[in-house]
Amino acid sequence: MLKRIWPLFFCLFLPLSAQQITLQSPSGILKVNFILDQGRPYYQVYRFNEILIDSSRLGFVLKNQPPLDANFKITDLTTDSVDQTWEQVWGEAAKILNHYNQLIVRLQEKSGLQRRLNIVFRVYDDGIGFRYQLPDQKNLKQFAIMDERTEFNFTHDYSAWWIKAYQWNRYEYLYQNSPLSQIDTVHTPFTMEGNDGLAISIHEASLTDFASMTLARTGRYKLEADLVPWSDGVKVKAQTPMISPWRTIQIAETPGDLITSYLILNLNEPNKLKDVSWIKPGKYVGIWWEMHIGKSTWSSGPKHGATTENTKKYIDFAAKYGFDGVLVEGWNTGWDGDWIKNGEKFNFTTPYPDFDIKQLTAYARKKGVQLIGHNETGGSVLNYEAQMEDAFRFYQKLGIHIVKTGYVAHGREIKRIDENGQVQYEMHHGQFMVRHYRKVVETAARYHIMLDVHEPIKDTGIRRTYPNMMTREGARGQEFNAWSADGGNPPEHTVILPFTRLLAGPMDFTPGIFDIMLSQYRPNNRVNTTLAKQLALYVIIFSPLQMAADLPENYEAHRDAFQFIIDVPVDWEETRVLHARIGDYVTIVRKDRHSDEWYLGSITDEHGRILKAPLYFLDQNRKYMAEIYRDGDHADWQSAPLDYFIEKKIVDANTVLTLRLAPGGGTAIRFYPIEK
Amino acid sequence: MLKRIWPLFFCLFLPLSAQQITLQSPSGILKVNFILDQGRPYYQVYRFNEILIDSSRLGFVLKNQPPLDANFKITDLTTDSVDQTWEQVWGEAAKILNHYNQLIVRLQEKSGLQRRLNIVFRVYDDGIGFRYQLPDQKNLKQFAIMDERTEFNFTHDYSAWWIKAYQWNRYEYLYQNSPLSQIDTVHTPFTMEGNDGLAISIHEASLTDFASMTLARTGRYKLEADLVPWSDGVKVKAQTPMISPWRTIQIAETPGDLITSYLILNLNEPNKLKDVSWIKPGKYVGIWWEMHIGKSTWSSGPKHGATTENTKKYIDFAAKYGFDGVLVEGWNTGWDGDWIKNGEKFNFTTPYPDFDIKQLTAYARKKGVQLIGHNETGGSVLNYEAQMEDAFRFYQKLGIHIVKTGYVAHGREIKRIDENGQVQYEMHHGQFMVRHYRKVVETAARYHIMLDVHEPIKDTGIRRTYPNMMTREGARGQEFNAWSADGGNPPEHTVILPFTRLLAGPMDFTPGIFDIMLSQYRPNNRVNTTLAKQLALYVIIFSPLQMAADLPENYEAHRDAFQFIIDVPVDWEETRVLHARIGDYVTIVRKDRHSDEWYLGSITDEHGRILKAPLYFLDQNRKYMAEIYRDGDHADWQSAPLDYFIEKKIVDANTVLTLRLAPGGGTAIRFYPIEK
Repeated sequence: MLKRIWPLFFCLFLPLSAQQITLQSPSGILKVNFILDQGRPYYQVYRFNEILIDSSRLGFVLKNQPPLDANFKITDLTTDSVDQTWEQVWGEAAKILNHYNQLIVRLQEKSGLQRRLNIVFRVYDDGIGFRYQLPDQKNLKQFAIMDERTEFNFTHDYSAWWIKAYQWNRYEYLYQNSPLSQIDTVHTPFTMEGNDGLAISIHEASLTDFASMTLARTGRYKLEADLVPWSDGVKVKAQTPMISPWRTIQIAETPGDLITSYLILNLNEPNKLKDVSWIKPGKYVGIWWEMHIGKSTWSSGPKHGATTENTKKYIDFAAKYGFDGVLVEGWNTGWDGDWIKNGEKFNFTTPYPDFDIKQLTAYARKKGVQLIGHNETGGSVLNYEAQMEDAFRFYQKLGIHIVKTGYVAHGREIKRIDENGQVQYEMHHGQFMVRHYRKVVETAARYHIMLDVHEPIKDTGIRRTYPNMMTREGARGQEFNAWSADGGNPPEHTVILPFTRLLAGPMDFTPGIFDIMLSQYRPNNRVNTTLAKQLALYVIIFSPLQMAADLPENYEAHRDAFQFIIDVPVDWEETRVLHARIGDYVTIVRKDRHSDEWYLGSITDEHGRILKAPLYFLDQNRKYMAEIYRDGDHADWQSAPLDYFIEKKIVDANTVLTLRLAPGGGTAIRFYPIEK
Repeated sequence: MLKRIWPLFFCLFLPLSAQQITLQSPSGILKVNFILDQGRPYYQVYRFNEILIDSSRLGFVLKNQPPLDANFKITDLTTDSVDQTWEQVWGEAAKILNHYNQLIVRLQEKSGLQRRLNIVFRVYDDGIGFRYQLPDQKNLKQFAIMDERTEFNFTHDYSAWWIKAYQWNRYEYLYQNSPLSQIDTVHTPFTMEGNDGLAISIHEASLTDFASMTLARTGRYKLEADLVPWSDGVKVKAQTPMISPWRTIQIAETPGDLITSYLILNLNEPNKLKDVSWIKPGKYVGIWWEMHIGKSTWSSGPKHGATTENTKKYIDFAAKYGFDGVLVEGWNTGWDGDWIKNGEKFNFTTPYPDFDIKQLTAYARKKGVQLIGHNETGGSVLNYEAQMEDAFRFYQKLGIHIVKTGYVAHGREIKRIDENGQVQYEMHHGQFMVRHYRKVVETAARYHIMLDVHEPIKDTGIRRTYPNMMTREGARGQEFNAWSADGGNPPEHTVILPFTRLLAGPMDFTPGIFDIMLSQYRPNNRVNTTLAKQLALYVIIFSPLQMAADLPENYEAHRDAFQFIIDVPVDWEETRVLHARIGDYVTIVRKDRHSDEWYLGSITDEHGRILKAPLYFLDQNRKYMAEIYRDGDHADWQSAPLDYFIEKKIVDANTVLTLRLAPGGGTAIRFYPIEK
């Protein structure tokens, strides 16, 4: 019996000048054609025999050399098929299916330098990945990539969600929605939806030592890789053997299926850390929001937040409610004056005098809590790299196993000293910083430190390889609600994130603000949700480190609602999506990795919703208690954000719950078995 | 404890000249404002505090009288709340929840004739109904309605699915999709979708003695009731007390929720038939498709289809496979010559000489099958009404309990003799024909005859009141695939019907054509689906009388696939919608009313789909066998429509099936318990 249809086909009906090789996905839904036409390499993508991506170029432009994008012959083709399941150390799902067919096309220039270029394609049922390999070769040693030729030549228009990549230094923008045909240059994950709901997202995987890829529109529906340059205009500095990140195209029948596509993780290297016993997802509180709302300051002085006394208060609070960590920002010297301009003043081992770090770490340990270190660099990575080993060693000795880093540079470039001792300024998302972020991850791993990176490089799945790379920011988070002049994050922001930024990986959004109106400290700002929606965000936005971001007193004031934050896990056995409309609403359920409990989060934009949620994911043969934290009958993010209602219902796998989400609202549910 | 929030509010913040009364739906999601502004009545509809329908006029224009639409005062307001569940004799669901709040506004003109007009509003969580009552009164006895003022004043644009009402004589058109702002005059159900998936459908309920309502666009987003006129231009001829049909606005979070909204049925009168033991849903085969493909003829002669011998063949086939009935078209005299022009030649009790009706009904009875009568009128309703009683009596005596009627007039008007003995021509959808169709239903009920009406008046839920009104056509059915010059029904037709025509009620679409390419008889026509999609239509398109439309030999040629048609029930305990995108794809599951079996139908347009179907509807604690009739791996409606595959899987309530629908394809599944 034929066990597998061989994934590779040679096409017989092509002009003599062209060769075509077809690779199909395991179930045959997706197909990639590799085409070599008059020596020039292209690829196409088909779904159900319909063309999704028409002939799109491949290759590179190199400095002081002919372009590496034509004049090729195929020297070898190899295929492989993989069908395996691997386990995450932590994550949104414990087990990940990695099922694909692979084709490696080995090309060599027919004349001239006879340089060699391999292109590796992997075709999954939920998308495509391809990458370039430049093998070790005589005529290509050190080189500089000036441009990547990779195109994504779509065949018609889509509705696109994007943030503009006009600075290459920030990701913290509100997402825009426009036709594909009207975008300019955008960051990835870049997500599009067809008018029949087909969802496509372009991103990259395993960005290790390369420039970040942004996407420039070069035709009506055509995108081209636009790499973030070095200060000298070079995009990537490399030597053979070189391997590029994967260019990924996730393709799903519905936007919800994008959320449960693990293609990015599959296209990263397996875990490189032998001992992962010290890596522990958890929840934390901290001295953070109070600075954002102006109650206290990062800098020293009468309003200094990171004092011994204040930190003890947070440690007590964390211990009382079972939180794992207490983040303290502003604990170390360097915050006084304009720290954004003078990041080199930060010292990562010297606490302010009113912060007794030894006493506090001991106090925390006694209480079963740990401090979370904070390293704001102000973008001064040279200063940070110089101190990093010492700092991490210092933290490890103190029992600090989590460090939150920061690179607040307000969009400025990052200072670098070049080979000639000259100062250069590099882009936040260029190869220089990609290398820096990777160096931090690897260094932290050696000191058993988990990372929570703010103002990061984008997530491309490195957490699979370095599972101490826990979570990161990389989008507008909660703090914009505290102070932004544009009115904060609108209600639709968090119903766009799951289909864009969050496809890349975990985000430290810092949900859980209960004092929605901020009236005491920020009368002109507010959080643009209901309180119930803040709870739902703990399920919607996956992060293995999840903050309860509000002040302790605000949680004590809504002790009943706070219970959900106390209960909700951060590490999951599996994830399913019940409803998904980009920018409108989304419902996600996740099963706790360490118990039989399930959690549901459902959120909406500024419109109220009535959604039916079938509980098919619950174990049949079992009754569950559903603790439902929902918007009250008169809740509305504008007029009544604090109207919430908590109720209990006995449910089972046959139950269909009706979720009523207020305008700007949400529902959070804990399900726990009440029978064996 | 306050058990119910009183549904009625008087608004205090209105100009002195205006009064406003608010009625909300049971859960408060929907609200209707009745407004009397300077004597003129209006209504508005809100959902979650957002305006969906802005001030819209109400009232009538009467002949030779002042309009009945202004100068009113409110004389009385009464409210009511109903929360009940009633049972259908047969249907898509056995039990129907009827939960609403009601407001009756009694108006009287402040001067002049001082006529009285009542408006009844019912607000459900899934929509609104309102109707007009003209009570018995001194200054309004006999009258003629020249126009209905009812408006639907939407506040923004929607994507609309519609058939144009430019003739008032036909429903058999392909649905169009355009912005609301670009439609002209359309039939109902008229369905619209917001860009967030909110689905709205306007229709009417209980059309009993009134003109059909079409909708004319009178503003950018504003529709107005446009009643189908009599030949003299009058819209409705009436006398007090008069009650109009309900004007219905179904409003659902998703298009799928529209399908399971039973508002139209709820707004009809309960069953009027005391004995319903003779009303039996069932499946049938018949001498029908062979005429449409030209294998035989309705008319007499060498190719006459309705012969004794041929009918026996169908009876044998029906008996062999357990079908309940055999339809025979062309059995009675009148088909020879141009029967569409000469419908008065039809005789409904005289068989052609080669059709031995007595022998055949006896033969059928012996075989446990019954003949289904056929009354094609050619639109000559005077001829039909004159013979109807005799005909029904004749059929009853023969044991014929189902009659399929037909009104093929190719869009022509219907002949009527007026009060003065003059010939008039009436519109197919005007009050004259509404009365005729109702008369047929009532007459048939007296003779215990179930009806299957082709070229009908639209369905407005009369089946609740007269459950012998089984099914009807009222849209482009299967026969267009046999002969239409426009290429037949495109793949998207059947993924639009569930959200438009089928919201009105059952349809005798006559699915089940296996000889997709029709190559023997109609080489220039074909059915634009895969074979598997033909099976899925039995679940998608609800009809209590469901035909296996193809020729017996074509079923014998695919005996394995035919098993699904043999097994599928036609009367359902409940219905749920798993996937729903108007014009793209839809998945419906229904539970058999008389067993523990469930059936799934999933169909797509011309695009292939991968859909995840959670089987949460299955009884937990039980294993089921899923008999899956799906598109083969290479199926495609264009290139490989006959590629199907049948497989069995053991499943339960926790199973999530992946449905792979080929382009133009579908999946049909039978689930039966394999444990107690």
